[in-house]
Amino acid sequence: MTVLVGERASGSKQGSAIAALATRVRDVHALNSTASVLGWDQETMMPEGGVEHRASQLALLAKIAHQTFTASEMKDLVSAAVAETASLPEDHADRVDAREIQRDWQKATLLPESLVTELAELSSKAMHAWAAARKASDFARFRPMLERTVELNRKKAECLGWPKGGEPWDALADHYEPGLTAASVADVFTPLRQRLQRLLDRLKGASRKPSNAFNEHALAIADQERFVRFVAKRIGFDFTRGRLDRSTHPFCGGSHCNDVRMTTRYLETCVLDALGSTMHEVGHGMYEQGLDGTRIGLPMGEAAGLSVHESQSRLWENQVGRSRGFWSWCRGELPAFFGDACDCFSLDQLYEAANVVEPGFIRVEADEGTYNMHVMIRFELERALIKGDLAVKDLPGVWNGMYRDYLGVVVPDDRHGCLQDVHWSMGAIGYFPTYTLGTLLAAQLFEKARKDLAGLDEGIAKGEFAPLLAWLRKNVHAEGRRHRLDGLCRKVTGQPLSADPLMRHLEGKLLPIYGLA
Amino acid sequence: MTVLVGERASGSKQGSAIAALATRVRDVHALNSTASVLGWDQETMMPEGGVEHRASQLALLAKIAHQTFTASEMKDLVSAAVAETASLPEDHADRVDAREIQRDWQKATLLPESLVTELAELSSKAMHAWAAARKASDFARFRPMLERTVELNRKKAECLGWPKGGEPWDALADHYEPGLTAASVADVFTPLRQRLQRLLDRLKGASRKPSNAFNEHALAIADQERFVRFVAKRIGFDFTRGRLDRSTHPFCGGSHCNDVRMTTRYLETCVLDALGSTMHEVGHGMYEQGLDGTRIGLPMGEAAGLSVHESQSRLWENQVGRSRGFWSWCRGELPAFFGDACDCFSLDQLYEAANVVEPGFIRVEADEGTYNMHVMIRFELERALIKGDLAVKDLPGVWNGMYRDYLGVVVPDDRHGCLQDVHWSMGAIGYFPTYTLGTLLAAQLFEKARKDLAGLDEGIAKGEFAPLLAWLRKNVHAEGRRHRLDGLCRKVTGQPLSADPLMRHLEGKLLPIYGLA
Repeated sequence: MTVLVGERASGSKQGSAIAALATRVRDVHALNSTASVLGWDQETMMPEGGVEHRASQLALLAKIAHQTFTASEMKDLVSAAVAETASLPEDHADRVDAREIQRDWQKATLLPESLVTELAELSSKAMHAWAAARKASDFARFRPMLERTVELNRKKAECLGWPKGGEPWDALADHYEPGLTAASVADVFTPLRQRLQRLLDRLKGASRKPSNAFNEHALAIADQERFVRFVAKRIGFDFTRGRLDRSTHPFCGGSHCNDVRMTTRYLETCVLDALGSTMHEVGHGMYEQGLDGTRIGLPMGEAAGLSVHESQSRLWENQVGRSRGFWSWCRGELPAFFGDACDCFSLDQLYEAANVVEPGFIRVEADEGTYNMHVMIRFELERALIKGDLAVKDLPGVWNGMYRDYLGVVVPDDRHGCLQDVHWSMGAIGYFPTYTLGTLLAAQLFEKARKDLAGLDEGIAKGEFAPLLAWLRKNVHAEGRRHRLDGLCRKVTGQPLSADPLMRHLEGKLLPIYGLA
Repeated sequence: MTVLVGERASGSKQGSAIAALATRVRDVHALNSTASVLGWDQETMMPEGGVEHRASQLALLAKIAHQTFTASEMKDLVSAAVAETASLPEDHADRVDAREIQRDWQKATLLPESLVTELAELSSKAMHAWAAARKASDFARFRPMLERTVELNRKKAECLGWPKGGEPWDALADHYEPGLTAASVADVFTPLRQRLQRLLDRLKGASRKPSNAFNEHALAIADQERFVRFVAKRIGFDFTRGRLDRSTHPFCGGSHCNDVRMTTRYLETCVLDALGSTMHEVGHGMYEQGLDGTRIGLPMGEAAGLSVHESQSRLWENQVGRSRGFWSWCRGELPAFFGDACDCFSLDQLYEAANVVEPGFIRVEADEGTYNMHVMIRFELERALIKGDLAVKDLPGVWNGMYRDYLGVVVPDDRHGCLQDVHWSMGAIGYFPTYTLGTLLAAQLFEKARKDLAGLDEGIAKGEFAPLLAWLRKNVHAEGRRHRLDGLCRKVTGQPLSADPLMRHLEGKLLPIYGLA
């Protein structure tokens, strides 16, 4: 049924073990990608009345996908494919496919079907309950769903197991970033928090403040939409292979590299919100579009992990979208969308507005300087929830306390506090740290791209983004799941993942803007 | 997994045979309704790049649904449920469910899985090829797909079998209208064609012609959209349980009664096109929304068949939407959407514009007087294609010849000829006659509603549509699949299905407009 294009592309022969395994895995992918379209539909299109039945549809798809992937004959198929590819070079696409399918399959066999089904159904319903609770700023409405989510995820962690000396959170995080542990995250986050805190303290004490005027400049939403679609296309998103719609919480989903579904959102008072969200999701979307179309459904046609995914979104949002060069080009494009409504803003004012650092309580509205603090708070909280050190009922209070400690802000209500993010309602625990790891990687990749691509910044200032995208396509997108986060980072940049490039990026940009360098 | 609300509603006990069967059938429905969302998405939202993989997704869903429905244990489940409900009254919901599930299951077991899968995949791809061929008005591009469709449908007919003395087309039509045969359709269509021809000849010879001005009056599409959404809501469509989007070919689909997906289309020069399409699809949509929400996925929560479905769309489009009363109300609403742009039209002009009879070559743009001629042409052609009396390659020529004979019009190209309809590309053969059968039923139902509901027309003239919808809910929607077309018609109207009410409706309205009565 599924066309085995991958066979021909990789040279593996019809009738080979890896080809037989690929057929199975592609069926699992077709089911999962169907669920993905249904999930996108639920967030963007589905009427209110569809909730109950959608949860049933998604639970059934998850059940059948799990059954298909863990069917008794899979054991032999996986072993045969691994054996068949064992003599190939370690980074050969077929060998990588076999290795990664084996990894996924081993994990899947550890999970009982009933748990997989229940998690899928709970996730669809909990997302809906979360949206309603968030709207009403009523944590009590969401609490039972979150309690059940934590409970089921603890069970899931018990089924999956975790490395010796680790903790249950590790078992969950491994799904989003292979090999990630809470201890290794803490090792990165603890010093990073101190360095960021020092920077934030300096900026706070600065006598010069960047212009914030463009962040408070109302522009018609229809014009904003035309504008961000133009930017999305210009930086390289292919609209014949994807869409951009609206949702409360921007995201990037879809079926595969040729059908990528992104969303953004619009605030009348701040086009930078829509632009930042869009460039972020376009970064994700272009990564998806850059995956190998002949290997849809196979590991070599999939993203390396969520940290690498996030590096792509952050790079376009921050390294490109908040750069002086970008605004130097972009300023000339504004009149085509907003008439003379932006003529009053100088290049400095636009550039500075994109780089105002101001602690707030909403993660997705956070600036580059404070963003990672939001992530650290969530990491510590979900780690404690799964460990059992924090009860769901105590979440709002502890959340608000941490916002006081980390960012010095007072959270006004749960809507702007612990109800702001969709992730936990989706059952996505272990996901948040990849945002910061991806942010580090983005800075490190961009430093290397600058070395490799002469005149990169000058090109961006002329609206030329193709060289950068081509560099990412070659060095990151085409690699599929060949490397883990650190392996990819070392291969491309020659260095292990480090916080230094991010700190250089932030200090190099923010200190001058704040008159401190 | 699926919540068995139906059990409680119908009083059948947990653990009963019918409940066990219902659980299975609801899983099949969850898969089919997932495919339905994917189909809607393909027509309205999916980017170009998604075509290939979407066909794979749909083929896999069809395969799994077929496997689930025809799994070996189903035989005993079906027999047990039929036996368990045999002592219930014939029209008891549980007995009807068992009877209809048995019917569907028997048919499914006759079809090999490979054929079901291939038909689903072909349909998704052929729809895409059709859309491209239609755009380019290039029948040659679509021809191989149509040839394969005819071939596979002949195979399907052979598998299903047909009544003695019948023909292969009957086996296919039975899917859309249980028990329908080509011979029985011809028995209705032959005299109807003569009666319609006489009426059309009289109108052609009339010296008075209705005003066509409103059909050539440009109105902004954004305003048209607001207007038709207002009408849709006013006549009774519940937007919390459904959507209205755009597509080339208007349709009504979706998952179930609480998530109904309709589309319409807009021509700047003629708001009546969007209005007619919308009221038509809303008729379908309100039927779906009127089905029993406690029996989603079970026959008593499904539509009786496509003729009854079409009776609901035609009734709102024609009996309501082209009535003088409707326009008398509607005229007062126009300024809210179009400002003073329609002030120049009198009530007579609006009413007459909705009732101009003018033979054309596009079915979906056809007026009430000529519409059924288009259906008759398609019926004869598809009957001949399946019988083998007509080769696909000869279709365009024969199509054009019939348009000359039946409607006296010259088809300019295939885009406006045999490529105009989506149905055959979807593999829907045996479907077209239900349009005319439904049109007959619409007229017959409306005559009865007028008798039952005092002041129906006066209410419509005041924009009161709820009594009519309530009458349809009770007499048609709530009946699910309890009755076949003729049985439902007799039960509600006391008479067998007849062409007399339609002819009374047409002559009673059109002859005065044309100054002939």
